[in-house]
Amino acid sequence: MSILVVGSVAFDSIQTPSGSVDHCLGGAATHFALAASYFTDVRVIAVVGKDFTAEHEAVFTKRGIDTRGIERADGLSFHWSGSYVSNLNEAQTLGTDLNVFQTFEPKIPEAYQDSDYLFLANIDPVLQARVRSQMTKVRMVCGDTMNYWIADHAANLAKVLRELDVLLINDGEVRMLAGDRNLVMAANKVLAMGPKTLVVKHGEYGATAFFSARSFPGGVRALHPFRAPALPLSEVVDPTGAGDSFAGGFYGYLASQAELTPAAFRTAMFYGGVMGSFAVERFGTERLQSVTRDEIEQRFKLFREISHLEYTGG
Amino acid sequence: MSILVVGSVAFDSIQTPSGSVDHCLGGAATHFALAASYFTDVRVIAVVGKDFTAEHEAVFTKRGIDTRGIERADGLSFHWSGSYVSNLNEAQTLGTDLNVFQTFEPKIPEAYQDSDYLFLANIDPVLQARVRSQMTKVRMVCGDTMNYWIADHAANLAKVLRELDVLLINDGEVRMLAGDRNLVMAANKVLAMGPKTLVVKHGEYGATAFFSARSFPGGVRALHPFRAPALPLSEVVDPTGAGDSFAGGFYGYLASQAELTPAAFRTAMFYGGVMGSFAVERFGTERLQSVTRDEIEQRFKLFREISHLEYTGG
Repeated sequence: MSILVVGSVAFDSIQTPSGSVDHCLGGAATHFALAASYFTDVRVIAVVGKDFTAEHEAVFTKRGIDTRGIERADGLSFHWSGSYVSNLNEAQTLGTDLNVFQTFEPKIPEAYQDSDYLFLANIDPVLQARVRSQMTKVRMVCGDTMNYWIADHAANLAKVLRELDVLLINDGEVRMLAGDRNLVMAANKVLAMGPKTLVVKHGEYGATAFFSARSFPGGVRALHPFRAPALPLSEVVDPTGAGDSFAGGFYGYLASQAELTPAAFRTAMFYGGVMGSFAVERFGTERLQSVTRDEIEQRFKLFREISHLEYTGG
Repeated sequence: MSILVVGSVAFDSIQTPSGSVDHCLGGAATHFALAASYFTDVRVIAVVGKDFTAEHEAVFTKRGIDTRGIERADGLSFHWSGSYVSNLNEAQTLGTDLNVFQTFEPKIPEAYQDSDYLFLANIDPVLQARVRSQMTKVRMVCGDTMNYWIADHAANLAKVLRELDVLLINDGEVRMLAGDRNLVMAANKVLAMGPKTLVVKHGEYGATAFFSARSFPGGVRALHPFRAPALPLSEVVDPTGAGDSFAGGFYGYLASQAELTPAAFRTAMFYGGVMGSFAVERFGTERLQSVTRDEIEQRFKLFREISHLEYTGG
């Protein structure tokens, strides 16, 4: 099944304790698409500037990602500069140049109309809602957001939340959105805002899924939350895009499955962690471009090994 | 097999968002002993004052805990006041009255000499070392410490670390002890200080065990860390003693097993989480006094259900 993702394709300048890179390919849609491409067909809607070259496009097409929805505009691509030097868990934004992204109007190519799964990466909820309203036949809609939209665009975001099958955000964002410091209470409040299921990312501590009565088709009900681990890593080279890579692995796996079941959802959470763990091993998208399906399966086994009671010698 | 625990038996005055209690029975050795008592025989070495009544002692003896090592001294028991009103994850200490604890000299009753497992709860490392040196025949030694000893009593603590089979501390303490912000790097540095195995408690995110070549007997080697989940709770009434209760469940289970194997260790981590999750449901030791073995097994199943890929309908 095919996933349509709408979000940013950008250039990032990043400083971390491991070094720095200047204007490397990034953006939420980029990380998401690369991670998801190991599981299913992916199509991208984004806007880029003249600095987005054939070489950059090849990063997508080499992974079989459909780039027909990446619009070329006059000007420069969205550029973000950030530093993780003082805290690997939270980026300090040094600069944001929206450039061509400022006037981004997502256009859905005719060829994308038959997409089965929709992912609304972290962009203005007005744009998320607009794309959502044009993709009425999708089987599932999953979305991300961030503190900026939660704080200052609450009404617009509320409309998007009502349309989501799965909302994927981080710990701090859930508590902020709900206005509740207890994670379970906050999750319940967020589920009441519309998403059928909530996946909360905890960075180096993994992720937790909270389900509702509407999470699964056919009256299937998951009574308890589900916690997926993260892999303890001795070096996080660049955390940028870890959350988007998690989303890509998670949603890519779900889209590759015939049915949305609790078991498939659990496995998807693990694949999310797997892709997130690869993403941070190198700067930018380097690792997500080069990882092999075999490495993915090996790491999936490792995720099971470090979290399941049964010891299999690892 | 029997566990000998040395540590504080105290009275706590606690404020949390759920309410407050004044002078309720607490202390690391108390929480540890109660949690461990559901799995194995427990003996306590501590000092209390005249305010420790027969009613308080009955909290221990009702659970079959041997209190012959609880020394009565003139004066009042150790009293701690703390608040979690602004942050449930970290206590704000409002007052510490060491009282009889100030001159605590652990004395090991003859009847305790045949104890198989030793737990050194969070007390002055000089005292931990003294007890350790008198218990040379134990099968295993497990210990706790805190930021105060790490910062200001490093040399004394270093001697204790060299004697430990398992060190059980929290996230911040591991990073502080190692002087490294990366958890894996910090864990490796701490393992190089002496403990054969390190268990890092992450509060609401669970716990991670890091192993060394010396973690298991018979040349058995665990190659990877192990992550145990915590149960998402909609209300944490009182976090006091959660870490000690984790330690009690963890070590109590290990002491009930014939062999120290990777599988037993994993199960012990889950029981640690189980007992920690009960402890915080009520103020003080209330829940640890009343929980049943059946409730413990039910919750253990729940821990598996929320963390394992296999969906069993829960």
